[in-house]
Amino acid sequence: MINVCLFGAGRIGAIHAANLATQPGARLKYVVDVFAESAQKLAKRYGAEVTSVEQALDDPDVQAVIIASSTDTHAELLERSAAAGKAIFCEKPIDLDLERTRACLATLERTGVTCLVGFNRRYDPQFSDLKQRLTDEAIGAVEMVTITSRDPAPPPANYVKSSGGLFRDMMIHDLDMARWLLGEEPVEVFATASCLVDPAIGKAGDVDTALVTLKTASGKLCQISNSRRAVYGYDQRIEVLGSGGMLQANNNLESNLVQTTDAGSQGAKPQHFFLERYAEAYRHELANFIDAVEGKSKPLANQNDGLMALALAEAAVESARTGQAVKVQ
Amino acid sequence: MINVCLFGAGRIGAIHAANLATQPGARLKYVVDVFAESAQKLAKRYGAEVTSVEQALDDPDVQAVIIASSTDTHAELLERSAAAGKAIFCEKPIDLDLERTRACLATLERTGVTCLVGFNRRYDPQFSDLKQRLTDEAIGAVEMVTITSRDPAPPPANYVKSSGGLFRDMMIHDLDMARWLLGEEPVEVFATASCLVDPAIGKAGDVDTALVTLKTASGKLCQISNSRRAVYGYDQRIEVLGSGGMLQANNNLESNLVQTTDAGSQGAKPQHFFLERYAEAYRHELANFIDAVEGKSKPLANQNDGLMALALAEAAVESARTGQAVKVQ
Amino acid sequence: MINVCLFGAGRIGAIHAANLATQPGARLKYVVDVFAESAQKLAKRYGAEVTSVEQALDDPDVQAVIIASSTDTHAELLERSAAAGKAIFCEKPIDLDLERTRACLATLERTGVTCLVGFNRRYDPQFSDLKQRLTDEAIGAVEMVTITSRDPAPPPANYVKSSGGLFRDMMIHDLDMARWLLGEEPVEVFATASCLVDPAIGKAGDVDTALVTLKTASGKLCQISNSRRAVYGYDQRIEVLGSGGMLQANNNLESNLVQTTDAGSQGAKPQHFFLERYAEAYRHELANFIDAVEGKSKPLANQNDGLMALALAEAAVESARTGQAVKVQ
Amino acid sequence: MINVCLFGAGRIGAIHAANLATQPGARLKYVVDVFAESAQKLAKRYGAEVTSVEQALDDPDVQAVIIASSTDTHAELLERSAAAGKAIFCEKPIDLDLERTRACLATLERTGVTCLVGFNRRYDPQFSDLKQRLTDEAIGAVEMVTITSRDPAPPPANYVKSSGGLFRDMMIHDLDMARWLLGEEPVEVFATASCLVDPAIGKAGDVDTALVTLKTASGKLCQISNSRRAVYGYDQRIEVLGSGGMLQANNNLESNLVQTTDAGSQGAKPQHFFLERYAEAYRHELANFIDAVEGKSKPLANQNDGLMALALAEAAVESARTGQAVKVQ
Repeated sequence: MINVCLFGAGRIGAIHAANLATQPGARLKYVVDVFAESAQKLAKRYGAEVTSVEQALDDPDVQAVIIASSTDTHAELLERSAAAGKAIFCEKPIDLDLERTRACLATLERTGVTCLVGFNRRYDPQFSDLKQRLTDEAIGAVEMVTITSRDPAPPPANYVKSSGGLFRDMMIHDLDMARWLLGEEPVEVFATASCLVDPAIGKAGDVDTALVTLKTASGKLCQISNSRRAVYGYDQRIEVLGSGGMLQANNNLESNLVQTTDAGSQGAKPQHFFLERYAEAYRHELANFIDAVEGKSKPLANQNDGLMALALAEAAVESARTGQAVKVQ
Repeated sequence: MINVCLFGAGRIGAIHAANLATQPGARLKYVVDVFAESAQKLAKRYGAEVTSVEQALDDPDVQAVIIASSTDTHAELLERSAAAGKAIFCEKPIDLDLERTRACLATLERTGVTCLVGFNRRYDPQFSDLKQRLTDEAIGAVEMVTITSRDPAPPPANYVKSSGGLFRDMMIHDLDMARWLLGEEPVEVFATASCLVDPAIGKAGDVDTALVTLKTASGKLCQISNSRRAVYGYDQRIEVLGSGGMLQANNNLESNLVQTTDAGSQGAKPQHFFLERYAEAYRHELANFIDAVEGKSKPLANQNDGLMALALAEAAVESARTGQAVKVQ
Repeated sequence: MINVCLFGAGRIGAIHAANLATQPGARLKYVVDVFAESAQKLAKRYGAEVTSVEQALDDPDVQAVIIASSTDTHAELLERSAAAGKAIFCEKPIDLDLERTRACLATLERTGVTCLVGFNRRYDPQFSDLKQRLTDEAIGAVEMVTITSRDPAPPPANYVKSSGGLFRDMMIHDLDMARWLLGEEPVEVFATASCLVDPAIGKAGDVDTALVTLKTASGKLCQISNSRRAVYGYDQRIEVLGSGGMLQANNNLESNLVQTTDAGSQGAKPQHFFLERYAEAYRHELANFIDAVEGKSKPLANQNDGLMALALAEAAVESARTGQAVKVQ
Repeated sequence: MINVCLFGAGRIGAIHAANLATQPGARLKYVVDVFAESAQKLAKRYGAEVTSVEQALDDPDVQAVIIASSTDTHAELLERSAAAGKAIFCEKPIDLDLERTRACLATLERTGVTCLVGFNRRYDPQFSDLKQRLTDEAIGAVEMVTITSRDPAPPPANYVKSSGGLFRDMMIHDLDMARWLLGEEPVEVFATASCLVDPAIGKAGDVDTALVTLKTASGKLCQISNSRRAVYGYDQRIEVLGSGGMLQANNNLESNLVQTTDAGSQGAKPQHFFLERYAEAYRHELANFIDAVEGKSKPLANQNDGLMALALAEAAVESARTGQAVKVQ
């Protein structure tokens, strides 16, 4: 039985706790959160105890931690957990700063603990099926990857301020998907962006609409489009053109019911947001983590993937600022 | 807290037990099954006890029972549970015999207990959305209902023998949907059927492919098609033509990923069978039952619906035998 | 160069004339119509002459005739054309009366002239592709055919009176498709029908909504649904279930443009009516006729198909009247 | 009756001649082509005469010309036709050189003749419907345009050499669509490209896979992807994200027939290439030209559109060379 400590009892922490409860080989032993009430509520629901970081990391029965606390606490918790020899599930990003992230990677390498970084989309059934088909060369050699990623509604401007900005906060997921699907590291990044959705986002120094173009050493291309608003729901599509065909991962709809009248046919919207669209991905992700702790498999995304995606996001920030393509690596 | 006794620890019983575990206001207290091992396993998983029918019905703390045992035990369990004043969730059919079913209804009427009959499809999100739109007259007046219902693979011939035959065992679900969606009782039934899939089914005295036509007093029409085999998966579609348009509930696919090559585009199959397609329906059904026990709502399908669907199935059997349309009611 | 005489310069005659103009090996020589103006207009457009039935049939340069005049003139024109040795393209039906139709077949057999009966749907690219795949056993053995056939709006009640009724006028097309796709003659017909769309149709002694069930000697089943009104356009779909899968011919939409908003996704309606949906079918049909006249191929539907479809329509009429399945052949 | 002279009797010239034949108010009077045989064949088919450029332009009965000859002859024919006062339908591009194109525009301005430039996609029913809905603000304000444009197979390398390269030859159509749909001129162009499909194209100094990003003054964004090879057919899709929703123009498929087996569902490919996909667009384009000659409407795309699209293509060429975004205007 693997005993797990959860840092962070917010929305995403609660998802991981619920998924943990369905894992026969693991249980939630501790919950740690600066908000005592949240910690208490989640702990009670799953028969866990509320404790402090120190006590949790000192408990030799705890083999694994889930870091789902606020972004600015990730790096320190990761380093302390690694030092304590715990396997780590760390929500993205490890840190918003590249150097700090590199320091974390050094710690992880030194301690040799398992680390899964929370790029949940790699676990989405459609996307993992798509990836498998690329590996199987179902559409030949990959030539162009197109990622559409749009949120249903913009976040509050004060969230934007501490988020690291659209490229580091939102597009980082798409940059990770791009690396994963291209099967080759991007060496050139071009980005352009606008504030079209909410002027408050612009005032906070951020953008809400962005396009990024990536190119690998062998010339494979990728285009990513982001918007903080798609009034029709969470728009999460991936298309890959290969020498032998095309793969398209499409939105999952709220329903397959169709109504046809003299005004045409009307179908449902895409699922509302990440909690709905990626519910299954979160389950697979947690299962992959427990498997990795048990030595049965490796994390589908690790600390190195966390670093590389952040490096691409940084390059995108610079490109959007300078209007020039930025070389990476 | 509502204490529930589950009769039958087989596949469908296990589903209801799992769904019960997610209901905050209810718990599984007892499991009863002639196979001790199955009962023990399920009881252990959900912290329940294995007991006998007598003890379960004698326990005043038990407010509700779920009858998910073999078909030939339904009627007796239902009558004993009703006599003991328990609320009843009874898998369909109440009984394969019309007279026996009528006797059960008399008992239920006399005792006044709540009874939900397991027509799970009424709880499918697509179908209930479709029904709601009919109620809202989104497509005007209903004129024609088309129900396509095909299993992925035929059952073993020995199952067929005790099943009551395709009309009573399989089409009964579709006949219930027909009544529900027509919004008016059918008064005429025509059925024709063949054995095209598996000769062993024919030897067992049953059919595997059937068409039924229903007509209501006001002239609304319904066609139902059944096959024991659709190699592409569980085919469960409903289409309603109204004076103002059409509603189509479609199959849910295993995935929305599409691969396009010089051979065309290729998408996924429908979900495999009822466990997958109606997983969500079973959850809503159990929730509806608990709500009904708590007096918050009424069963979406009750004993009368069980009787009426069986009466239509009987009429279909007779029509298939005689080649004539059969009047009902 | 094949010289053709067209009987009937109405809507369907004009279509055949236009398609004839694109056939390099044929030309329209004569147009005959009781309405001189219609005849004149069409003749002028395609460089043809207006003439009488006698003169047209007496002209030895005329090898072929197209009978697109009113239904009650078909049989006589067919017999006179056959007697004159002309190849015949006859719009369905040959006649609304079975005996009269049989007499025409006798004449055709005696004279040995080529006769194509206008079951245009056999030439629709989707349906002919579907038929080819059945022939190729792409889905194994045919088990069940489902034909959905709905007009966008009901005809005027006075048309209904002279039409022969829904079964002979409208469903005859579907009955022909059923025969063609089942690959085996139906031996049993059940029909039920209502007047739900327009009371004037009921007053005229006809129905506007109908279901027909067919069964072949080997037990293959077919269901046909007809409505005189589908407010969303011409609904023309065919589905075939086979031992190895399913084929679905779908409606062609007016456009593939999709608009998605917070109200869901909205697509176009099916093409409006037969002129749009079967435009390409009419072209292939005319080409098949010219090829047949030139001895390069045979008509895809001939006088025997015309007779058989009418016989099934008659059986449907009787079944709808008696409420009993009717044996044919 | 408008008399038209066609310069160029090749594939595209033949299309225009065929569409001209369906225009009641116009007729093909002359065909001019350096290949006498092609000219003769086309002229004969439509009752026209073969002549020289001089004679055609000297004939006062000729009001309009269609320039569908090789690209390097466009500018001179356009200037001579303009000088002769003829209305001009000029296939794109006017010229591959920006200065030469500007000189042509000066001539056109001086002479005041009508000029339609052959951006056929503006006439595609889906795209023009999409444009109309943008004008009607069906999805609010335009924020992002995504254009996918892929040919089924790469052209021969020797075609590539004289084509002006992918940006001027192929993407110019997409750049025109971008301008048209953004409703605002792009002011910044970024391009990146690779040779992934055919090394011979790279040897000829060109690319076969490209991504372009455009930005307008108000920050609207557009991404265009091009490939010289999509093995599944001509891939022509446009997606527009607006403040109130999304519009998607999809590929037209070769058929709507779907086959579903235990391997999933299989549908048809997109229509093969531009002759199929844009057949209807070419008809509308020619009709728009004749209407413009008759003074009933204006060309949907004129010489200025030809110039602007070429200027964007030039900017894309420069951006792909330098790796920097290029400012335009």
